[in-house]
Amino acid sequence: MHDGPAFAAYPLDRAEPSRRDDAALAALAARPDARVAAFWRLKPLVRDEGGVVAPAWLEVGRAGPPAVFLGLDADGAPVFAAALDPAAEPQSELAPGARFMELREAAGTMDAALASILAAGRSVLAWHASHGFCAKCGAASAPALGGWKRVCSVCGTEHFPRVDPVVIMLIVRDGRVLLGRGPTWPERAYSCLAGFMEPGETLADAARREAKEETGVVLGEVGFLMSQPWPFPSQIMLGLRAEALTEEITIDPHELADARWFTRGEVEAMFAGTHALARTPPPVAVAHHLLRWWLAEG
Amino acid sequence: MHDGPAFAAYPLDRAEPSRRDDAALAALAARPDARVAAFWRLKPLVRDEGGVVAPAWLEVGRAGPPAVFLGLDADGAPVFAAALDPAAEPQSELAPGARFMELREAAGTMDAALASILAAGRSVLAWHASHGFCAKCGAASAPALGGWKRVCSVCGTEHFPRVDPVVIMLIVRDGRVLLGRGPTWPERAYSCLAGFMEPGETLADAARREAKEETGVVLGEVGFLMSQPWPFPSQIMLGLRAEALTEEITIDPHELADARWFTRGEVEAMFAGTHALARTPPPVAVAHHLLRWWLAEG
Repeated sequence: MHDGPAFAAYPLDRAEPSRRDDAALAALAARPDARVAAFWRLKPLVRDEGGVVAPAWLEVGRAGPPAVFLGLDADGAPVFAAALDPAAEPQSELAPGARFMELREAAGTMDAALASILAAGRSVLAWHASHGFCAKCGAASAPALGGWKRVCSVCGTEHFPRVDPVVIMLIVRDGRVLLGRGPTWPERAYSCLAGFMEPGETLADAARREAKEETGVVLGEVGFLMSQPWPFPSQIMLGLRAEALTEEITIDPHELADARWFTRGEVEAMFAGTHALARTPPPVAVAHHLLRWWLAEG
Repeated sequence: MHDGPAFAAYPLDRAEPSRRDDAALAALAARPDARVAAFWRLKPLVRDEGGVVAPAWLEVGRAGPPAVFLGLDADGAPVFAAALDPAAEPQSELAPGARFMELREAAGTMDAALASILAAGRSVLAWHASHGFCAKCGAASAPALGGWKRVCSVCGTEHFPRVDPVVIMLIVRDGRVLLGRGPTWPERAYSCLAGFMEPGETLADAARREAKEETGVVLGEVGFLMSQPWPFPSQIMLGLRAEALTEEITIDPHELADARWFTRGEVEAMFAGTHALARTPPPVAVAHHLLRWWLAEG
């Protein structure tokens, strides 16, 4: 359905000045062309139309108050996201023929721009659901700024949605690429090494640390390839290309069940589904596109 | 003192497996070669030796329990960070001739590797100081994993230090660069446009949104140049190069007091201190290095 990584094609104008203006937000929500992406336990309400999944948009108010102002579409129509009560039964009858589906699954056949809207909504709603209290003083906080901020009711501290940077590395050496599989991953699933960045690291620092920790492989030159928002719950995937200086692999069993070097021919077979041991990550994952980039480069 | 951006030269092995092992952490803290970077109200304890500032390391225990295990140096000696009671008077007599200094100021003459250690320590200690409570349920949380995690005492939710990605853009068009100044900045200070990333954005999305919001300038092609950890309190600066498609500037007065296009000759004069209106950001800032890169490219 799309060429680039899923979730990386956000089509809305975030119209940030409107967030600061409660009257403007109310006017946007009252417009007849306003629409809402509804979520229940972080699953978007979608409709499956002949194998292609699309958001089942609701009118404002059908899913309770709009929680997050996501922006304006190309026609200037406002788009919101709202969370249904997670303790109640899922109300898929809110839209005919609709149901709640995991975004990771839905995105497989969804238009990239629509998947990107749901991704942003999911990330911000997940943040609200897990950040109802002030980390500084423990009191309840309340949403503000059209859902893009929370403010503590007692100490007044402002909290903003988290975006957690993750490095993910196309690690190459002598025409081979290093892929690993996590201890709990589905059978045959291999992917690029990745990990959360820590305070005090550059992108290259984080790439080097993760490769060393997980496999013992030492990285040399590191370059940037592509980024992708990843809404589970709110990462920015930083896709890097790295030259390995060493080959020997010693896996950290806390992190990996296996890691090995694959040739271009093997990765082609993985994409074709004919590799005996391994398959590539799905197109929804940035690692899929890093591997495609590497095959095209070779 | 150094060629690259400050805070981007972390020299320690973070030795992540030791964090998971309380006995190993205790053994590291008990070693005679262990040392601690002490902070008071997030200011590191430093010594000024003939105009060159360096950390005033303490033995373990002098500054209370070590709060964060930062890693092992090239000799295998353990390095920790610890926060002194912010409510008490600053105990600079902990080390002869030492005092507490803002890291931003201290880093100006500090060795980049040492400044990078203090930067990581400052970020993690700032996070502990502002995240003593569980954002999910409001109960008190406690440090774990050598200071790299907090765990809620009631609901058990795990919390990890924030790293907030910020895009900062070298925006160019026809041999000129776009620089702006914030409403509260020191006189003559101009820098590259920058802003926090939001959930659902790629790096290019964030760069385009910030340029549009702050100046109305529309960006075309966006590429990656360099990253820098920024410990005020814990950003990862993502230095980008962007081609502008438009020239006209309309500033958002919430964000900027001024923005304008500068020629290479003007930026050279800014570096030389001979520009009538503007000066460059200090070497501690990644924007300084983006501008140096641009002059070298031209």
